[in-house]
Amino acid sequence: MKTYNYSSLYEFTYKIFKSLKHSDEYAQIATKNLLLADLRGIDSHGIARLSGYVRLWKNNRVNSNPSISILHETMSTACIDADCALGLIAAQKAMELAISKAKIAGSGWISVQNSNHFGIAGTYAMMALEEDMIGFAFTNASPLVAPTFSKDRLLGTNPIAIAIPAGDENAFVADFATTTAANGKLEILQRKNQDAPLGWIQNPDGSPTSNTNALKSGGSLLPLGSDPEHASHKGFCLGASVDILSGVLSGAGFGPWVPPFVSFLPMPENAPGKGIGHFFGALRIDGFQPANDFKAKMDLWIRTFKNANPISEAQKVIIPGEPEMESFKKRMVDGIPLNELVINDLENLGAEYEQLFPAPLN
Amino acid sequence: MKTYNYSSLYEFTYKIFKSLKHSDEYAQIATKNLLLADLRGIDSHGIARLSGYVRLWKNNRVNSNPSISILHETMSTACIDADCALGLIAAQKAMELAISKAKIAGSGWISVQNSNHFGIAGTYAMMALEEDMIGFAFTNASPLVAPTFSKDRLLGTNPIAIAIPAGDENAFVADFATTTAANGKLEILQRKNQDAPLGWIQNPDGSPTSNTNALKSGGSLLPLGSDPEHASHKGFCLGASVDILSGVLSGAGFGPWVPPFVSFLPMPENAPGKGIGHFFGALRIDGFQPANDFKAKMDLWIRTFKNANPISEAQKVIIPGEPEMESFKKRMVDGIPLNELVINDLENLGAEYEQLFPAPLN
Repeated sequence: MKTYNYSSLYEFTYKIFKSLKHSDEYAQIATKNLLLADLRGIDSHGIARLSGYVRLWKNNRVNSNPSISILHETMSTACIDADCALGLIAAQKAMELAISKAKIAGSGWISVQNSNHFGIAGTYAMMALEEDMIGFAFTNASPLVAPTFSKDRLLGTNPIAIAIPAGDENAFVADFATTTAANGKLEILQRKNQDAPLGWIQNPDGSPTSNTNALKSGGSLLPLGSDPEHASHKGFCLGASVDILSGVLSGAGFGPWVPPFVSFLPMPENAPGKGIGHFFGALRIDGFQPANDFKAKMDLWIRTFKNANPISEAQKVIIPGEPEMESFKKRMVDGIPLNELVINDLENLGAEYEQLFPAPLN
Repeated sequence: MKTYNYSSLYEFTYKIFKSLKHSDEYAQIATKNLLLADLRGIDSHGIARLSGYVRLWKNNRVNSNPSISILHETMSTACIDADCALGLIAAQKAMELAISKAKIAGSGWISVQNSNHFGIAGTYAMMALEEDMIGFAFTNASPLVAPTFSKDRLLGTNPIAIAIPAGDENAFVADFATTTAANGKLEILQRKNQDAPLGWIQNPDGSPTSNTNALKSGGSLLPLGSDPEHASHKGFCLGASVDILSGVLSGAGFGPWVPPFVSFLPMPENAPGKGIGHFFGALRIDGFQPANDFKAKMDLWIRTFKNANPISEAQKVIIPGEPEMESFKKRMVDGIPLNELVINDLENLGAEYEQLFPAPLN
């Protein structure tokens, strides 16, 4: 592990996105949104994926000069064609539109087709916070998750993000995959060749397993709930709803037809829609009550839950978004830690595009 | 178990609601919405609770002649004061407003304060279906659920319902509590004095238990996910989001301040808002794409998941809403089964209000 200054990683990432022929504005948006994952401690979704985005671009799956267009709209809704833009850019533009519709109509709801991976969902939900709005961000993703009772991979990890402003307290920011296992935690176990708890994954025949490599041989992730006795059908309902709002409602691919992030996998055949789909929402708080009244009550809500009696004194209740905010504050000052594999990958990427990868802080 | 004709139960329930001084219109709405739970097979939320609603009325917690009013609104949002109406009535009126806003603005989002229990959430989400809209219904409920890492009951079972139209296939209707254990399943085990699987409930000290009576002695239900290793913090995020949208955003009670359904429990003190809160949404499909295109793709989505390879041939993938639709069709023809306890309770209720409880079919 070495630690890097945020601005040095920003400059490097920005130059890589510029090398892919993005405009200044688009390269900045993509860089900011990608690195927010690193700042918030979601290491699996940040700069570690930069070379993956570059490979998508090399395979002509990313358009760095897209015509992002509105296909259809009403006062409070719109469907957008992202024209194969980086998801990191398409999502920002869609959320901006959601917010501008909410300013006039009270709420804005945008579905996006023909996009690709957008980093962490929380990034876009949080754009609503400074406008005193509640933000929502969903996306579908390539199939890795089996519906309850099936052995087929038919859903992505399809995350849900909801960001809600507070007053003196930090905002409430929920951002989670609709599976039991978080990608990041699973990757750590795979790297160490360690077992996972039962209930995270199943074998290709649908039997339970703790072997984290079962995924590579055709096994699947399990929906939130883990098994039918613990209501995995509810996790399936959630992942399915995200897929339908993001994919079916936008005209993107859905279910087994969502394109893979990794460029070496083939694109799905006979897809009923274009690319990956997202869904965003912005809900103006003063469409319901004065924002300051609401935020004072959110402070009460947050303090009530934070001060709940813990089962063990060693672990208090965690308010959604609290650990990520702590990580953000710390990493902005102390820097962002990267592991050797990621550093090597980024150094090679830098060499390819004649950009020096920065020196670590320590 | 005896079985009763739907229309005879309808007539009985309607007369009881009329005895509580409801108008014809309100008694019909309340009856239809209450009995839809029985028709859909959610026995815990239907006519079995009729005497509970009557007791709330006797305790002056239900206003049968409410002035349901809009406190604040925009083109696509509104906050409603239900004036202590039956939740069964307030929810219908709120969802009607969501739909009428969606017709003009593309979507409608309504928060409701000062309400009480509304039956099953799916009832109101499904109102959107015939309008070619996607419907959403959430409600908070009195605290029975502990946040991850706590032993305090701070959240209700806070359900989420999402109803999505299809073409030739039945609509997709997800409707589930954000806990691991469904109320109905738990009640069946309690009645039989049987154990529950670990991961449904915890003891008052927060330790795991399979004893279904632990709830009566101060234990709590667990959020979807069951334990931290299986991501119960995601279930907590869901239950919390429902509480905030339903309770905080409407000006209702929230967290530990949501009034109990059972009339013998005291009302929470120092509540920061009024009554129970709900949140409803209606999203016009043709605000994104032509409804017929969408519905054809929903048919493809549903068939793809229905035909997924099962782990065991004995159990195929269940599409959300499918079992409830089968129950509805069957019970409309064959009648609604009620157990002896419920029948006795309803016969007593009938005697009190001089209404003959109907004879069973068999």
